Amino acid sequence: ARIVVLGGDGIGPEVTEAALHVLGVAAKRGGKSFETRDELLGGIAIDATGEAMPERTREACVAADAVLLGAVGGPKWDDPRAKTRPEAGLLGLRKAMGVFANLRPVRLHAALADASPLRRDRIEGADMVFVRELTGGLYFGTPKGRAVENGVERAFDTLVYDQNEIERVVELAFRLAAPRKKKVTSVDKANVLESSRLWREIAVKVGARHGGISLEHQLVDSCAMKLLTHAKDFDVIVTENMFGDILTDEAAALAGSLGLLPSASLGEGPRGLYEPIHGSAPDIAGKGLANPVGAILSAAMLARHSLGWTDEAAAIERGVDVAIAKGARTRDLGGTLGTREMTNAVVDAMS
Amino acid sequence: ARIVVLGGDGIGPEVTEAALHVLGVAAKRGGKSFETRDELLGGIAIDATGEAMPERTREACVAADAVLLGAVGGPKWDDPRAKTRPEAGLLGLRKAMGVFANLRPVRLHAALADASPLRRDRIEGADMVFVRELTGGLYFGTPKGRAVENGVERAFDTLVYDQNEIERVVELAFRLAAPRKKKVTSVDKANVLESSRLWREIAVKVGARHGGISLEHQLVDSCAMKLLTHAKDFDVIVTENMFGDILTDEAAALAGSLGLLPSASLGEGPRGLYEPIHGSAPDIAGKGLANPVGAILSAAMLARHSLGWTDEAAAIERGVDVAIAKGARTRDLGGTLGTREMTNAVVDAMS
Ligand SMILES: CC(C)[C@H](C(=O)O)[C@@H](O)C(=O)O
Ligand SMILES: CC(C)[C@H](C(=O)O)[C@@H](O)C(=O)O
Repeated sequence: ARIVVLGGDGIGPEVTEAALHVLGVAAKRGGKSFETRDELLGGIAIDATGEAMPERTREACVAADAVLLGAVGGPKWDDPRAKTRPEAGLLGLRKAMGVFANLRPVRLHAALADASPLRRDRIEGADMVFVRELTGGLYFGTPKGRAVENGVERAFDTLVYDQNEIERVVELAFRLAAPRKKKVTSVDKANVLESSRLWREIAVKVGARHGGISLEHQLVDSCAMKLLTHAKDFDVIVTENMFGDILTDEAAALAGSLGLLPSASLGEGPRGLYEPIHGSAPDIAGKGLANPVGAILSAAMLARHSLGWTDEAAAIERGVDVAIAKGARTRDLGGTLGTREMTNAVVDAMS
Repeated sequence: ARIVVLGGDGIGPEVTEAALHVLGVAAKRGGKSFETRDELLGGIAIDATGEAMPERTREACVAADAVLLGAVGGPKWDDPRAKTRPEAGLLGLRKAMGVFANLRPVRLHAALADASPLRRDRIEGADMVFVRELTGGLYFGTPKGRAVENGVERAFDTLVYDQNEIERVVELAFRLAAPRKKKVTSVDKANVLESSRLWREIAVKVGARHGGISLEHQLVDSCAMKLLTHAKDFDVIVTENMFGDILTDEAAALAGSLGLLPSASLGEGPRGLYEPIHGSAPDIAGKGLANPVGAILSAAMLARHSLGWTDEAAAIERGVDVAIAKGARTRDLGGTLGTREMTNAVVDAMS
């Protein structure tokens, strides 16, 4: 198996290194192997090549079985007048890899219920997966730009979806729901947006193909509320790119620690892009303090979805659960462990 | 003073009636008076005239000093194939009245801290006001529609803002911040959207005119998180229409009871549109069970912003605070009071 590793910026390289270490241990125990190749993405790529996603990176990623990404961005590249930004590399990579669905499981670790800003009774037992459309909508729609008319400047973006873009991501949501609680919540703003009305129609059409799985529609504003008041009612939530960006971050905050949450971006085949949901955290970069669990769980998702290593993925996830249950905590969780110690705690708990 | 009353659908008429009763008591004590005129909006208007905002309603509203609205919508008018929807009446009214800024104060009543899904230490002391742009962006931008190309259907909406639309709403946010904590948070998605980059530029420009008030920028996804993790850090939050729709509902859920929260939609002059943020709650409509406080506090905002009745507005708000502190609770707050008893409790507490 060939994995391209994009450490990226800030704490990115530290956490991907930790994740690869854990994946290596799991692979070895399962008699599996993989090779890695490091490439540049984001700010570090801008510094080295002037481009956020160099051509060499693109080629390596589309030729790989899977891509593991740390994080991109940081104050160094935040100048609004800059010609290119780290985020452009990430958006370009998603598009180049054709990963149209971003999967984000949000689960509360029982031992960490107190880390959630929510009252324990509201959040305990919550277990949901977001499926965010990732290569369409406002992020990529055209026309997109600026114009001056009669001396007044305006700026515009286009929210556009075609039926196929909607169908494939909703289909994926239904497939994910089958072995879970068999419930899909499709989120839109159908009382205002044309794109949402098409979204809802297609969701209904796809739903009709999946007997035994229930489909409910929720308006995005109402969903933002219900995540707080009825977190446990959700199973699989599917939505368009921008709504998904907002709701997945809200849901991540519910779970208490951003440092724990992984994500997988998938397309038609098994190839995927995996990254922890946390950012590049420049304030603690290079200090060995970052929580590696988000990246480690991303590597587990990589093992399962792109390599078909079900047992190895489960072993890593169990290792994380056990380590946390035994009290292993990095500083973001009120503990004292560094990246290396936390990684070792996970490895120890895997045996 | 002339107030147009749009009871609308579901519990709308019950709660506006309660609010007008309280406003009447406050006015009388202050030696003030107002006249009201009832008009149709929403589902009830569709049933009576075929239109969600009849011309007669539009004319009355633009000629009034203020408009008090209950709620619109309900399952009866939810058919996606319907020619017109209740929501269209509300959107049309906002546009007709030119109310480009939706103000939503979100404050936790100390006596109700336990009603919030958030842990007490996360939410106690939170006191913020949202200023949501209300007549632009994805809601009204054109082109907006559907097209079929090579047999594939697509649907599109346009997110567009011009500099003047941004400037006036951000200016209002700064003015609101002056007598408060002197902090404006402008929310955008400037790392992805052209409209957000213009938004941020204009926010900076407006901010430069307001010495002594700090301006911070937050990405919308990050803001959705920080509302949960750092609710107390916010003062005035200004954002575009769709982001505002989502974030204000998230923030409302934080506060524990949707039934308590008012809103004001303002334009250039004193005229405004006032409505509780809760919906039409068809399940309890007509039963005398609805919490009238959201509507009562909307009437207080009406008194302050559109009529200049500062003392009367304060008296109403104090009445609500005292009544709640003394234990008055409708069923949504775990109590037993009906709409009428809750209204009386507020009136009693005003003296
Ligand atoms: C960095 C940014 C462009 C990106 C997005 O909005 O998609 C991030 O917020 C995410 O959710 O992965
Ligand atoms: C009913 C709907 C069109 C409306 C909106 O999205 O503006 C509502 O959600 C609101 O926030 O007032």
